[in-house]
Amino acid sequence: MLVGTEWIIDASGCDPAALRDVARLRAVLESAVRGLDLRVLGEPRWHAFAGEGGVTGMYLLAESHLTVHTYPEWGVATLNLYCCRAREPWDWDAALRAALGATAVGVRAVPRGA
Amino acid sequence: MLVGTEWIIDASGCDPAALRDVARLRAVLESAVRGLDLRVLGEPRWHAFAGEGGVTGMYLLAESHLTVHTYPEWGVATLNLYCCRAREPWDWDAALRAALGATAVGVRAVPRGA
Repeated sequence: MLVGTEWIIDASGCDPAALRDVARLRAVLESAVRGLDLRVLGEPRWHAFAGEGGVTGMYLLAESHLTVHTYPEWGVATLNLYCCRAREPWDWDAALRAALGATAVGVRAVPRGA
Repeated sequence: MLVGTEWIIDASGCDPAALRDVARLRAVLESAVRGLDLRVLGEPRWHAFAGEGGVTGMYLLAESHLTVHTYPEWGVATLNLYCCRAREPWDWDAALRAALGATAVGVRAVPRGA
C-alpha cells in the first residue's frame, strides 16, 4: 500500500556560513511550507551544533515531516520532505541555489509504504 | 561528499491497534536508540492523530534523526533513521514483526549528500 512520497534532497557546494545560519535555513523551509500548503504541528525544532558545526531543523507536519541537516565543513545540506498526501514537486533546485549558494542539487522521490 | 546513511523502513501487515499505541511505538524506537547507541537531543515529539488516525514520532539525534509515521487504516508503519556517523544496520525486520505484528518489512539504505 502506497501511503506517501518522500523527497530526499541533497545539495552540495553550499556557502558554509549559510549552512550555520538558522534564520536563513528557517526561511528556506518556511517558504516550502507556505508554497506547498503544508500544516505544521506544534513548534519546529531547531538545533545549532557547537563551534563550526551545522544545524538541524525538524518540522512535524499534518502531512508527515520536513527536516534539514547541514554540514558546513563539506558545503552540504540534506533535506527530507515526507508527504502522506499528494503534492506537486517543489523547486528545491532553485530554492537551494538562491538561498544557500548550492552548485548541485539532487532530488529523489521515494514511494513510502510500498 | 557522502555525509551519512539513511535507512528507510516500510512495514506492512501490522496490527492496527499497535499502530495507535504510542507507548508501544516509543518502546520500538527507544530499543533502537539504545541498541545503536544513538544520542537523543531534547524531548522526542509524539503526536497521535484524532479518531482512528495514526501516530507520528520524531527524535532529533546528535547523529541526525529517527522518525515513525503509522497508518492503522492500511496496517502500515514507515520509519526513517538518518545517521551521519557509521552504524551497523539494525534488525528492523525482527523488531517490527515482534512489536507491531508486521508481516513484511522492507529496508532501503540511502546514501546522503552524494
